Amino acid sequence: MKVLVINAGSSSLKYQLMDPETREVLAKGLCERIGIDGRLTHKIPARDAKHEFEIPMPTHAEAIQAVLDALLSPEYGVIKSASEIDAVGHRVVHGGEKFAASALITGEVMAAIEECIPLAPLHNPANITGIKACQAVMPGVPMVAVFDTAFHQTMPAKSYIYALPYEYYEKDKVRRYGFHGTSHKYVSGRAAAMLGKPIEQLKIITCHLGNGSSVTAVDGGKSVDTSMGFTPLAGLPMGTRSGDLDAGILEYLMNRYGYDIKEMLNILNKKSGVLGISGVSSDFRDLSDAAEQGNQRAELAVDAFNYGVKKLIGAYAAAMGGVDAIVFTAGVGENSADQRLAIASGLEFMGVKMDAQANNVRGRETVISTADSRVKVLLIPTDEELMIAMDTANIVNQ
Amino acid sequence: MKVLVINAGSSSLKYQLMDPETREVLAKGLCERIGIDGRLTHKIPARDAKHEFEIPMPTHAEAIQAVLDALLSPEYGVIKSASEIDAVGHRVVHGGEKFAASALITGEVMAAIEECIPLAPLHNPANITGIKACQAVMPGVPMVAVFDTAFHQTMPAKSYIYALPYEYYEKDKVRRYGFHGTSHKYVSGRAAAMLGKPIEQLKIITCHLGNGSSVTAVDGGKSVDTSMGFTPLAGLPMGTRSGDLDAGILEYLMNRYGYDIKEMLNILNKKSGVLGISGVSSDFRDLSDAAEQGNQRAELAVDAFNYGVKKLIGAYAAAMGGVDAIVFTAGVGENSADQRLAIASGLEFMGVKMDAQANNVRGRETVISTADSRVKVLLIPTDEELMIAMDTANIVNQ
Repeated sequence: MKVLVINAGSSSLKYQLMDPETREVLAKGLCERIGIDGRLTHKIPARDAKHEFEIPMPTHAEAIQAVLDALLSPEYGVIKSASEIDAVGHRVVHGGEKFAASALITGEVMAAIEECIPLAPLHNPANITGIKACQAVMPGVPMVAVFDTAFHQTMPAKSYIYALPYEYYEKDKVRRYGFHGTSHKYVSGRAAAMLGKPIEQLKIITCHLGNGSSVTAVDGGKSVDTSMGFTPLAGLPMGTRSGDLDAGILEYLMNRYGYDIKEMLNILNKKSGVLGISGVSSDFRDLSDAAEQGNQRAELAVDAFNYGVKKLIGAYAAAMGGVDAIVFTAGVGENSADQRLAIASGLEFMGVKMDAQANNVRGRETVISTADSRVKVLLIPTDEELMIAMDTANIVNQ
Repeated sequence: MKVLVINAGSSSLKYQLMDPETREVLAKGLCERIGIDGRLTHKIPARDAKHEFEIPMPTHAEAIQAVLDALLSPEYGVIKSASEIDAVGHRVVHGGEKFAASALITGEVMAAIEECIPLAPLHNPANITGIKACQAVMPGVPMVAVFDTAFHQTMPAKSYIYALPYEYYEKDKVRRYGFHGTSHKYVSGRAAAMLGKPIEQLKIITCHLGNGSSVTAVDGGKSVDTSMGFTPLAGLPMGTRSGDLDAGILEYLMNRYGYDIKEMLNILNKKSGVLGISGVSSDFRDLSDAAEQGNQRAELAVDAFNYGVKKLIGAYAAAMGGVDAIVFTAGVGENSADQRLAIASGLEFMGVKMDAQANNVRGRETVISTADSRVKVLLIPTDEELMIAMDTANIVNQ
């Protein structure tokens, strides 16, 4: 079975054609500058080949057509006929309270995704545009929407409710939604497989640490709490995002500098996080280099981030009444042995014993705690595209 | 030695005349409606007496004079001469980064407290007014400022820095300060005394849970993290305050309802917290009653609050690499056996075993964990006035 996975942004579109059973990626790539001019980068992993094209893409429809043409090309292609694509899986950022799982795209589902636009005014419209473009270019192919928020819909009310006037929840849908759900679901599932235990019997804390970061408490396979909130600004400090804040700071800075709320949010989204603390970079590799050269603010940025993750691990262990496994994933989680060690050290009191040697690894599934560690610590590379393809196949095959 | 403890608000003033060595409270009371008309409530604990007076109080000076008159009154008084008051201890909310301990009030100290006004525009001016009124009415009596923030000045940078552009810290002093420091210091000291161990060897989590709530990690007698932040709005949900938030919510609600930041903050300070969730009350006793009568939102408000405290306990245990004692104090912490049990249950994985029977107590120093609980759980009534009097005596006697 071949599934085309689509992640459409406002002026870009990522794709991957894969077989969810064999996990083979036949081709993948990126359309950029949609609506401006148009550029396609197309890769064929099996041939280690990369092709770049300038192709006019006035809308997402031309981008999808360019992807199809590349997939079918005698020279750069990997399939002979468009009919080989059995299904398309679309990443959709926000499913609100309407979607607790992935869904076959119907008119009703499209309407529901559109109703969630106020909750994700930048992302959902782009996702919808991508779906419509695919439907136009590939009529009749079943399509599935896979939501970033769906996995977290199992959270109990005490986790998702904000301490605000309740009508903001009832009328305006203000609550914790959480994001990165596809990643948290994927790595928690892999963790159970690696430990050889049914996920229903496990308490897992998944740390998706990258440019955007979130930590999730997964109890018996279900998300019971997560650090991102109503928006992906919340929770941990991130590359450029502030994470949770004292709202008193917004009032203080807006009064002091005359910012309006849009300017304030732009600073909190784009100029804060570890970039803000360090003044150096939003990239943890740059921060690590700068810290080694004695930059104290870079060191503080990394320390504050690691400390935030450590506190969330403690908080979620308390929330679940214990923890069996801690998973590190995404850019930082998969690649920074130093940060994993800094985060997990000092947690011996709750049964965590890191194996410094085993931890000295990058980007492959590894147990990085000692054999006698009561809590297993795992490095698991995330694969959101595979998870989307698997969900899509499951739904289409039902 | 007799110390007069003063806690001055903008239109009120609390006082207590006590001996910090014997801990005897000779008299205490409250001036209200200062600047409006003026009312004094004066209590003498030893005689179980309460007296109420209408006294014109155009300014705090008349209020202080009324307090002195009451203390010296042949009928309602407890001292014969004003010279029996050896020192005055003033509660001051914000000491910024200038005060890591209580300080004898000099011209320089007054100037420093004034410099902190932008950080506490409602509280510090009232505290300053109270100090000046006392100086006018009681010239020559040594006075000490005891700061709500001072105990938390030992926090490391990773705990106090926000993930914001660093210049907001350097130039504008935006950082976590924390509050309730006098209470956290007092109960952590009492916890060490109850456990018969030097505080330098203990990791203690102090939960000050009342209408305003904060949790502090006290490592070796020093605050290393606390849940309130730049302002007392941050951290846990409180009676009417939201606690930490996703700033994206502010943008969403301000755009939706046309609030300006002042209106928004008023909602977050006055109409949120457990009052906001429940729609019933900011008082946990009312919520408990409503929940018992089947009010689900009242139940959710209490659950969300307890859950927030539980997560902070886990977070701070992780931050300190373990915990030896958990302390409950203040209105809810001292009086709600149910909430203490709900908060501490499920923490067995980190060595907490509650003793349900011992926990069935109110407002007196008690060990409420089992004898074999690795982590001791303690109920310790707070006494900020005593702590202020003790600090004042220590400084004046130096």
